[in-house]
This record gives sequence, structure tokens and C-alpha cells, in this order.
Amino acid sequence: MTDFAATKAMFHLPGGVIYLDGNSLGPLPLAAPARVGAMMQQEWGDMLITAWNKAGWMDQPRRLGDRIGRLIGAEPGSVVLGDTLSIKVYQALASALEMRPDRPVILSDSGNFPSDLYMAEGLIRSLGRGHELRVVAPEDLADAVDDSVAALLVTEVDYRTGRRHDLADLTARTHRAGALAIWDLAHSAGALPVAVAEEGADFAVGCTYKYLNSGPGGPAFIYVAPRHADHVRPALSGWLGHEAPFAFDPAYRPAPGVERMRVGTPPILQLAALEAALDIWDGVDMDALRRASLALTDRFIAGVEAACPALTLVTPRDHAQRGSQVSFRHPDGYAIMQALIARGLIGDFRAPDILRFGFTPLYIDAGDVDRAVAVLAEVMEQRLWDRLEYRERRRVT
Amino acid sequence: MTDFAATKAMFHLPGGVIYLDGNSLGPLPLAAPARVGAMMQQEWGDMLITAWNKAGWMDQPRRLGDRIGRLIGAEPGSVVLGDTLSIKVYQALASALEMRPDRPVILSDSGNFPSDLYMAEGLIRSLGRGHELRVVAPEDLADAVDDSVAALLVTEVDYRTGRRHDLADLTARTHRAGALAIWDLAHSAGALPVAVAEEGADFAVGCTYKYLNSGPGGPAFIYVAPRHADHVRPALSGWLGHEAPFAFDPAYRPAPGVERMRVGTPPILQLAALEAALDIWDGVDMDALRRASLALTDRFIAGVEAACPALTLVTPRDHAQRGSQVSFRHPDGYAIMQALIARGLIGDFRAPDILRFGFTPLYIDAGDVDRAVAVLAEVMEQRLWDRLEYRERRRVT
Repeated sequence: MTDFAATKAMFHLPGGVIYLDGNSLGPLPLAAPARVGAMMQQEWGDMLITAWNKAGWMDQPRRLGDRIGRLIGAEPGSVVLGDTLSIKVYQALASALEMRPDRPVILSDSGNFPSDLYMAEGLIRSLGRGHELRVVAPEDLADAVDDSVAALLVTEVDYRTGRRHDLADLTARTHRAGALAIWDLAHSAGALPVAVAEEGADFAVGCTYKYLNSGPGGPAFIYVAPRHADHVRPALSGWLGHEAPFAFDPAYRPAPGVERMRVGTPPILQLAALEAALDIWDGVDMDALRRASLALTDRFIAGVEAACPALTLVTPRDHAQRGSQVSFRHPDGYAIMQALIARGLIGDFRAPDILRFGFTPLYIDAGDVDRAVAVLAEVMEQRLWDRLEYRERRRVT
Repeated sequence: MTDFAATKAMFHLPGGVIYLDGNSLGPLPLAAPARVGAMMQQEWGDMLITAWNKAGWMDQPRRLGDRIGRLIGAEPGSVVLGDTLSIKVYQALASALEMRPDRPVILSDSGNFPSDLYMAEGLIRSLGRGHELRVVAPEDLADAVDDSVAALLVTEVDYRTGRRHDLADLTARTHRAGALAIWDLAHSAGALPVAVAEEGADFAVGCTYKYLNSGPGGPAFIYVAPRHADHVRPALSGWLGHEAPFAFDPAYRPAPGVERMRVGTPPILQLAALEAALDIWDGVDMDALRRASLALTDRFIAGVEAACPALTLVTPRDHAQRGSQVSFRHPDGYAIMQALIARGLIGDFRAPDILRFGFTPLYIDAGDVDRAVAVLAEVMEQRLWDRLEYRERRRVT
């Protein structure tokens, strides 16, 4: 049994705010500033360079990788932290293409996050060997896996719509076609149960600053299936992925296992914040989290549909196809979101017309959902968004 | 006139320690913990997602890039922060190879940091187009630039020996041969005056956690000469290098200028620490820094050579060929460094036999040098390193 009232008490949640944007940036764990401060003073400050060994900094990417591994169903020692999600996507793709040298296609879908597609595009252009990035509609992905495909690159939960792919089925199809499956878990890790080992992902990548609450710019993670980890040859062959970084060998020899996916010096301040965030996750049962998440998204959908007929639901009603966010469509979506934010309901807007609300049981409860519905109803009923101040164009994150 | 007593007072320097390893990890700026703490509480904590705009997080990599730009002689708007140095080396190399498609060679030297060579090796292997990484002895580099060379990849100051290359001369030769010059400033930025614009570097990269004191795992920087910045096509084409990241365009269009070298979400905690570190640099005159650095290294060389005849100087005596570190060679270098560290003199060891000492006028003064010489003399005279505890093998950073 997970006590979500207890986890909620572990976050700093500003008064007067209902925060439904934890799928973009998780809130501050109360323990994080002291943890980072202690790391800075007692480790960086007092131990100086010796902290790389004495304070365990060098092993942090692997140690915290294992703690994330538990949340995504990974084998111990198969997950490592570092870099950004885009870099990790590149590493997985480059490895997969090399493992399937006779196959020209990276298959993805138009619901994928653009940066995944950009990284694939950049890799293909660099390689200059006539690879193709084939992007199909999300619903066509399952039937598009054929024997020209080297790698399937799929983000489980669509960042705009909240639609969830069936990764077990897609991965089985991918393997039957002789291809490799790369999962992007940006909107999955910490959002719902994931089973990378059981369902056979070849590679998985994700970020830590959304549902995992590591703070702005927290490092990404990468999973490499143990059956591949000693064979893949990293394209981004940095010194910390070397078998013996401090031998300063002139030739690159990859480290055993997933650690070869490390590149450069890990970001120790960000890792300290992540560590504080992961302490909150230690007691959480992922099935209980999923049940709570579905109850929250069901409640929000029912409330908004009853109170705001002008908003069109985008997220699937079918639980199996839903992540942990709810999106509605409205032509004035941008201005509506500004009006909501001005009233303390923080969600976000995704072009061209999507209002997106993330539900994170660790710190969002039924009372928050009801208050959010009430604010949304007020804004819609009174057309509060229809003011110049909310219609002004500005960059939205 | 730079007041180095004043800058020294801005660092946390633990009692009983003489810290000559700032060329590996700079010490803690006293203002950094409060800066990071305030960022975490008031920005991440209270502003949540809105801090990306409200607190200026999104522009931080460019804004701080300009402040580093001043220290390396770069044009405003030509430096941006992010990722690790290895990733930035990869970006510069990939761009350079694409700009010289008919030339097969990346030229570097055996004094370069291994990760630079590993990244070149990985890139070449990925591209699979028969490029060659040609590694010559440091003293042969100037004569090895010929018209087969696409890019010269040179680290100005050798991480082991402290030997400094003549970048102006190497770059002029490189350009005469029709090739591009990539400078790695890992041991230069904040260590000595650098003139990327005046001396015509095509690309320059560096890290911030050594002489710039941004803390463990602080982000790297990249400079792209403005004459190239709107033309290079990034291989690592991430969303934050896109012209309009929040348009979520399915196709990649590079941002104007150096910002196209951004990849993913920037590490905001590390950037806050860097910002505090850069405040210390604001008043520093780089020529005064260089004079102070040479005075410190001269004093250390003279002191050690007088007191410790068993140590062999590796670093050039010629000022023009010296960075801001001094290295000595001894077959028992590893054990000697352990004995020094046990007595509070922190330098570092680089295999197979090098004792390395960094001199950073911001917080190291003549008194520190004299104390360091005394500790070294004591350890050498009494053969204090010749104890089992110092001879034990362990990983050294």
C-alpha cells in the first residue's frame, strides 16, 4: 500500500497553485535543497577533487541508474545516467543501426517528440548511407514494421495527446521482423509501470525531470538490454565509457555493459537533486501508482466534460491507451492556458491547440482535481481567456 | 590591476589544505551554495515550470556563454553552454568534416586528452567513410598539417606535461593548408589569455569545472566562429538547437548562429553554480592572471628543483610553452602523490609517472607555493611515500 498523502508531504507545493505540469517539470522535493547544499559544502567544498572517489561521485550514474531501473522493470546494472534525452536517443539509434547494417529504415510515428525525430534525422544525414526516417501515424505503427526496418523508435506516451502505445505488442512485432526496439520513456518513467526486461526492449531512454522530479535539466538515463550491452559499440565514445578511464589509454576500449554508454563527466549537482527525488520513490508501488493515476485522470475527464462542453477530449478514454496526462483541444488553447495559469492552475499548451494536464499521484490528489475542474469551468463559462493580456504571443515552455 | 587576495577570499579553501588541483576541479566559490539554493527554492520551487521564461533559464546557456566568451576572446553571441566537453568535441569535429568533404584526415597529437581522440575515433567509425585519425607527437604537429587534413584537433595545454602549443601559428598553418582548426581549451579557459577571434579558431570547446570553478560536472562550452555559425549543420540536432523549439515542428531547422549547437534541456542547477563562479571572474584581467600564473609556476619549479633532486621537471621552462600547471616525473609518482595528499598537499597523478600541480592565481599565492615546496621536500627527503598505505593501488581521479 502506498501512502500518497505521505509522498505529497515530501514536496514543496506553493500555496494557491494546482500544479498539473509535473509531466514537464516535476516540483521540488523538500529534501533536495539540503541534499544539494550538503553535497556542495561537505563534498565539493571540503573534499575537493578527492570526492570523486570518497563521496562516490564517480559511481553515482550507475547507482542511481539502478534505482530508476526498479521503476522501469530493468535488470540490475542495466541502466546508467548522463547527458540529455536527445543524446541518449542518438546513442541508442546509432547502436541499433550498426547492429542491423543491411537495413535502411528507422521507423517512428508522428506522435513522437520532435527532438527524437531531429536526432534521427541528424544521425542519418551524418552517416550519409541512405538510411530513411519513416514516420507514420501512431495508429499505423504496428503494421508498418517490416524487414526493411533496423530500429523502431517509439515514445510510449504521446507528449501532446497522452495516447499510450502498446509497447509489448509493438516490440514483439519488431522482433518478429528482425528489428530492434528503442523505447522513449519520457512520459512513462514514474508515470506508469514499465517492464523493459519482461517485454524485451532492446534500448530504452528517458528523462528524470518530469515524473521523477530531479529538477530542471536533470540527467537522462539509458537502458541497454544485457543481451546487447557487451556488444554494442558506442558512437559517442567518451572517456567515462572507457574500460579504464584513468589509464588514459590512447585507444578506446568500451567498458563492460551499459557503462560504455557514459560519455563525459557526470553532473554531480543535478545527480544530488535526483538522489533526493528518488528517495521519495523508494516506497512507491508502481501498480498502486497506476491505479491512482487512472482514478485521477478519469475524475478530471468526467468533471471537465460535464462543466466545459467547448473543450474536446483528445486523450483516449480506454485505460490501456492512456498515459498519465489528459489533453483537451480548443482553438483558443493558448489564451485559455494563460488565463488558467493566472488563476493558479498550471498546465501547459502544446501547439497548435492542445491544453495539457499532467496527473502525478505522488503529489496530486482528488481534491486538486476537483479544484482544477472548478477553475477551468470558471474560465470557460466566463470566457476569461478572451482578454488581450492572455492572447499576447509569448514563448511557452 | 586585479586583486588576487580579494578573489582568494571568495573561495572556500579548507584549512590545512594546499589545493594544487584546480586544473582538475576548481574549489567551491563561497557564493555558490546560496545561489544554487535560491534557484532551487525561489525558481524551481515557487515558479515551477514558468521559471523557464520568468527566471530566464532558457537563455542561461547563451548568457553565460557570453561571459565565458570574454575570457577566451570571443565575439558576443558566439559561445553557448551545454553537455560535456566530449560531446562538444564531437559536434565540432562532425561539423568540420562536413565542411571539408573531400579531405580524409583528422589531425591531432599524442598529448591530446584521450577522450578527444576517442570521440574522433567513434565519429570516424560511425561515418564509415574511410576517415583517418592521424596522431603525431606534439612537436611534429606543426609540420604535419597538409592538404589531406580536414580538421586539426588540438588541446592547447597538455593535461599531463603542461606543455602549451602555439595556437596562433598552428591555426595559421592549418588555414594555409585549407583545413579547419578546432581548439580544446580545457586547460586554457581561465588559465591564460585566449584569443579565439583574433587568432582565427574555427571552433573552440572547453569545460567549466577546472579553472572556471563551476563545480563537478558543470556544463561544457562551444565557440563557433561567426563566419561559420550560420552554415554548419549540427550532427547532434536536438530540439533546443532548433530555430523554434516550441513550435514542435516535425522537421529540424537549425537556430541562427551558435545556438544550433544546443542539444537538450540545459542543466539549471549546474548553470546556477557556474553563474556564481563567473561573478568572481568579472573583474579579472587575463594578462594580470597570466603574469601571476607564471610567477607561481616559476617559483614552484625553482623551489622543487632546489629541494627535490629526485624529481624530473616535465613542464617546459620557456614561458611561451607553459600552461598553468607544473609536472614532475618520478617512478613512484603514484605513491608520492598519496603521501602528499595525506599531508594536505593536493595535486594529482597521471599515469604512468607524472605528478601534476595546478596553479590558479585566483586562490593560490606565493605563500601556498612555498608551503607546497616544503611539504614536497619533506616527503621526498624522508621517503615518506615508501609505506605500504601509499603504495596500495586505487583509482585516482
